[in-house]
Amino acid sequence: MLSAVILLADGTEEMEFTITYDTLVRAGVACCSAFVPAANASVERPYATGSRGIRIMYDAVFGDSKQFLPSSYDALVIPGGAKGAETMSTNLTVQNLVRDFLAQDKIVGMICAGGQAALTTKLPRQPLTSHPSVKAQLENDFEYSEEPVVVSNKLVTSRGPGTAFPFALTLVELLCGADKRAEVRAPMVFPPNTPF
Amino acid sequence: MLSAVILLADGTEEMEFTITYDTLVRAGVACCSAFVPAANASVERPYATGSRGIRIMYDAVFGDSKQFLPSSYDALVIPGGAKGAETMSTNLTVQNLVRDFLAQDKIVGMICAGGQAALTTKLPRQPLTSHPSVKAQLENDFEYSEEPVVVSNKLVTSRGPGTAFPFALTLVELLCGADKRAEVRAPMVFPPNTPF
Repeated sequence: MLSAVILLADGTEEMEFTITYDTLVRAGVACCSAFVPAANASVERPYATGSRGIRIMYDAVFGDSKQFLPSSYDALVIPGGAKGAETMSTNLTVQNLVRDFLAQDKIVGMICAGGQAALTTKLPRQPLTSHPSVKAQLENDFEYSEEPVVVSNKLVTSRGPGTAFPFALTLVELLCGADKRAEVRAPMVFPPNTPF
Repeated sequence: MLSAVILLADGTEEMEFTITYDTLVRAGVACCSAFVPAANASVERPYATGSRGIRIMYDAVFGDSKQFLPSSYDALVIPGGAKGAETMSTNLTVQNLVRDFLAQDKIVGMICAGGQAALTTKLPRQPLTSHPSVKAQLENDFEYSEEPVVVSNKLVTSRGPGTAFPFALTLVELLCGADKRAEVRAPMVFPPNTPF
């Protein structure tokens, strides 16, 4: 069974997290949400508080090797939300995991401010997008695009909550194929003429 | 400050819940998630488990009058997810609240299988939509539509996760006006030519 780890922190954009997790589960991908504590913070609660106040229980704590073996997963996703993305992108263990996944030809997804992790991880220059609010941080080091979803080998980047569905469906397609993408998409009932 | 209560139960579609809550918070609407226990079940945990396994902490327990006074809110939202919507739509206190809100000219939103509540509440015949999977239950008693979002006076209905953004933005427009809708929509970065 294919599997994905989706990072979660205080300040994560809860729509981006939830749309990605739920859509991957619909495709039959086993998902694990892994909580990344803020720098120098301890893990005191069983949940993360999203950027708009929704409290989501996490499945595992990132970095707790007894509880969670990230290398066993097929894909890694870094959602946005300014504060959550800062916590993730500045975490050295997250940075190492991003590099390890890409080195092993595994999928890494970054959406919205999560794209900052491409910079902190020092990924090579390549096509990429992000939320417009972090474009200035990225455009000198990458081939910055304003496409809703950019696939660069196994790095998949996207822009914000409004592109979270095409982002998640692209991850489904890369992991499970175009037929599975279509099968998952249909019962979601997107409006006619939705461009993804 | 405007406020909305968004129901949450085991089996709620977590994208529909999260998109509605988060989008309303972005518009400055104070949101409360109220947990509806399944029939004859006690409230044992501080969270609901969504239809795809995401565990969301609730803000209040529906029906606990010390903790939660539903009549103080400006809008009521019933999300989908087959099991969650069944729990909500068969709850007599929820049914009474739907009728009370509409009688007071307050907004009631129902999305996806949440539309079943229009039937169990015995609302008068009017335009409505829902997830296609519950169309057969509704089409004899309502003017069934396949539009992504249907506004019938203060009853707002919609179809599924794929219409949750236009549903939530319609609620924002009805509560806060068209300018606020546009202000909330822009930083979400929908793809070009998105039809809402």
